[in-house]
Amino acid sequence: MVSEVTGADVLVAALDACGVDTCFTNPGTSEMHVVSAIDRHPRMRAVLGLFEGVVTGAADGYGRMSGKPACTLLHLGPGLANGLANLHNARRAGSPVVNIVGDHATYHRHLDAPLTSDIDALARPMSDWVGKPATPADIAPMTIEAVRQANSCGGRVATLILPADCAWASLPMPGLSSLVEASTQTSPLERPNLEAIATAFQQAKRPMLLLGGEGVSEESLAAAARLAAKFGIKTFAETFNRRWARGHGRLPIQPLPYLAEFAQATLSECDLLILAGARCPVAFFAYPGKPNDIMPEGLACLTLAAPGTPCSHILSDLADRLDCPGAPETSLAPSRPSLAANKSLSQDSIGQSLAALLPDNAIIVDEGCTNSFAPMHHTVNAAPHDWLQLTGGSIGCGLPLATGAATACPGQKVICIHGDGGAMYTIQALWTQARERLDVVTIVFANRAYAVLNFELARVGAGEPGAKARSMLDIGNPEIRFADLAVSMGVKGVRVDTIEAFNKVLEAALSEPGPHLIEAVI
Amino acid sequence: MVSEVTGADVLVAALDACGVDTCFTNPGTSEMHVVSAIDRHPRMRAVLGLFEGVVTGAADGYGRMSGKPACTLLHLGPGLANGLANLHNARRAGSPVVNIVGDHATYHRHLDAPLTSDIDALARPMSDWVGKPATPADIAPMTIEAVRQANSCGGRVATLILPADCAWASLPMPGLSSLVEASTQTSPLERPNLEAIATAFQQAKRPMLLLGGEGVSEESLAAAARLAAKFGIKTFAETFNRRWARGHGRLPIQPLPYLAEFAQATLSECDLLILAGARCPVAFFAYPGKPNDIMPEGLACLTLAAPGTPCSHILSDLADRLDCPGAPETSLAPSRPSLAANKSLSQDSIGQSLAALLPDNAIIVDEGCTNSFAPMHHTVNAAPHDWLQLTGGSIGCGLPLATGAATACPGQKVICIHGDGGAMYTIQALWTQARERLDVVTIVFANRAYAVLNFELARVGAGEPGAKARSMLDIGNPEIRFADLAVSMGVKGVRVDTIEAFNKVLEAALSEPGPHLIEAVI
Repeated sequence: MVSEVTGADVLVAALDACGVDTCFTNPGTSEMHVVSAIDRHPRMRAVLGLFEGVVTGAADGYGRMSGKPACTLLHLGPGLANGLANLHNARRAGSPVVNIVGDHATYHRHLDAPLTSDIDALARPMSDWVGKPATPADIAPMTIEAVRQANSCGGRVATLILPADCAWASLPMPGLSSLVEASTQTSPLERPNLEAIATAFQQAKRPMLLLGGEGVSEESLAAAARLAAKFGIKTFAETFNRRWARGHGRLPIQPLPYLAEFAQATLSECDLLILAGARCPVAFFAYPGKPNDIMPEGLACLTLAAPGTPCSHILSDLADRLDCPGAPETSLAPSRPSLAANKSLSQDSIGQSLAALLPDNAIIVDEGCTNSFAPMHHTVNAAPHDWLQLTGGSIGCGLPLATGAATACPGQKVICIHGDGGAMYTIQALWTQARERLDVVTIVFANRAYAVLNFELARVGAGEPGAKARSMLDIGNPEIRFADLAVSMGVKGVRVDTIEAFNKVLEAALSEPGPHLIEAVI
Repeated sequence: MVSEVTGADVLVAALDACGVDTCFTNPGTSEMHVVSAIDRHPRMRAVLGLFEGVVTGAADGYGRMSGKPACTLLHLGPGLANGLANLHNARRAGSPVVNIVGDHATYHRHLDAPLTSDIDALARPMSDWVGKPATPADIAPMTIEAVRQANSCGGRVATLILPADCAWASLPMPGLSSLVEASTQTSPLERPNLEAIATAFQQAKRPMLLLGGEGVSEESLAAAARLAAKFGIKTFAETFNRRWARGHGRLPIQPLPYLAEFAQATLSECDLLILAGARCPVAFFAYPGKPNDIMPEGLACLTLAAPGTPCSHILSDLADRLDCPGAPETSLAPSRPSLAANKSLSQDSIGQSLAALLPDNAIIVDEGCTNSFAPMHHTVNAAPHDWLQLTGGSIGCGLPLATGAATACPGQKVICIHGDGGAMYTIQALWTQARERLDVVTIVFANRAYAVLNFELARVGAGEPGAKARSMLDIGNPEIRFADLAVSMGVKGVRVDTIEAFNKVLEAALSEPGPHLIEAVI
């Protein structure tokens, strides 16, 4: 007699067979059999979040750093809904994520019980793929397909909706290895017409390279450095990148400016734009009376590698074809600036001290918003590091991203620079950092405002703001005591208002294991 | 020459013309013209939330208590997504809510900028009505229609998507009063066949009345009391109610049990079920091997008033037709129990002390989850109060509901009883309570667990939980210091672990204006 397992056991075994070994979770009643199956499955790690936006954002951070998906476990439509904003960011990042969303038993849905909602409709806008097993026998192939989808195109968001009666059904464990094997057969990538691109490149007077996705990996940047060394071409990263290799030894490039008019001015300086992993640049927002299509008229644009495809080999092939010598010596000496001193506490002094103290192979998660510029500037030639950005514009991503990145990379320090407004959306992530003893140092830029909106309010031409408008962008009444907030969730928290105090606290935080938060009152 | 205003000014003026005077808001760049229009419009109050789930949950609480919609102001698809879980609860409550969701300028959407998403698709699952002006001229009629929709059927969720170029367009202010007048013409309600119901009622041996929606208002309960007094019929409230009039002078009724088998046993005791404002009862979840359709076979069920329709007049008409005398004297004497003493701190002792200290006309917001039972039991004949419940099952509703209820009812004390797990979903609501100096006393039952899930894990038959499963339902590692957390956001917070300390702190909190939080370690 064949012994039987539950549908949930099949799910977890199939995830495992595909290499998924980490589950960020916030389950409810309809997911209890999955909880139980994870419990029985030693190789699946469960990381609890107190809010679903933490769960999905952590899966994003994990996917960016490990290059493979974690799964999430979410409770019905509302649980998924709470996670959608960070799935939006994950999808824009091209992160691999597999969501497991519990649903009512199939025979229960017609009763329209209080927690019933259209999960499929909720999932689609922020998922690249949505599946729902019709019978327990579908669970294994569909789970494997979900992981395949998540791993495709460089990283996508796949959502599997699991009815409770599929999760608790009894069935024999299916053979998984042949299913997994069949799913991993990949078709060869479409190669660009390298010859045409090389010719256009040589004919252009001022070609520009715009890198995104895998185009800002260490390997891609090394290949881009060969092109830059021989031709002196301008090279930019996209404005927001999922994982950007920076610091000493990596080609020092700037991101395309956020503001449409500056981006357009930058693009106007070239006569050929070559995209590697990057999308054709667009304005973040439209503004009254300003152009929103920032591509200069007539600018030729060629795609070397489409978004979501590997870039380093193609960049390398292009460099070979253009007879670029091997990897050039970096022109910049390694720099470890001295700690900032005798300066006020600001993004500038913080950025300088951060560059001074940055450990090797740190991961910097950046939701600094208006306070990102100086830290980015100062660290350009600091110790080698990865820089993770807010790719979808939905604030409240940084703390969860840091949580997921630290889960994926236990040996590396994660430094999360965060605006105070954005930090409050998913502040619950601090608790998961404390629970898992993750090496995350969060620096909150406490300027007590949605500072970017004060700026945007002026830019959209909405007139001079009165007291009510100003108060709607001001979060200083009352002041949020971030250090105390961190402590209340088990994270070491310190509030500083001088650069000297900041230096001391950052140095201590980086030398101790476990999570820390520095409230920098600027 | 006619002076022109912006589309956003038309929006705010139209909301005002329909009686909407409160906006719970968390705006972004695409909503800056609406911020500016609110700024120019003295009658529109803006209440800022740090997270969109706070904003929508507060609108729900406001709608339940004021009987009219507030509006929300949300930033694009991700901002709406963050608010969806509490819109789900609002929709299940039958609360009037008008969401204003900014969108990119119409001519910007095709560029698929980072924050672009399918807002319409996201809105539909949790909205009863969705509209989007195609031109600025549509704004006035569509806003008025949104409010009409929100006010229809006893309260619905209406979502208006406002493209940024509609918001910033210039146009003459349209005449609003005629549009508003046309929209408020209502068609007469369908009346039930009272004679047939009265006959069935008289022929039944054990009729039962199930009240929901407006059926648990003070007026409806007074009419139900006449029927109960004459016929001794059993009367229940739905398990979860949007606003339930309780306490001395109101017919003391029980909610239908949450657990399917108990609900079914209760229903088996009657031979006729009459629904007034209530839906036909269903099980919250299905469980393996247990019946999920809890209506006993063959039980006759008649609808006196459909969900979302007024009930009190119909109940009153039925009582008249059945020759019930006027409002009976309440059979119970008013009770103000003594403060609990010499007991351990528990939901029972807390419930007793709460009943002892409850001010007149308090509003109790209940997301106590497994700790709701005793407070509900003890307050059944306490000072008259309203009891607001979690209607859609999506936890993380209580703190925002309390915030909105207190905004709507400045003269009344709001007491929010909350589980610790649920409180962490939208903990940011505390900050809005501090900012607006709202009279809310939150009691967190700190049992350091998703206690209901420990119970559900056993109920779904998922086997004996191991260490990993137990840890996924345990939130005590690390312990969350709720009192400190409250203080970090400007709310007075105290942690207590004895009933004597609790009594003292609750008494003090109720005698002082402004928000308080009591972390009751049980």
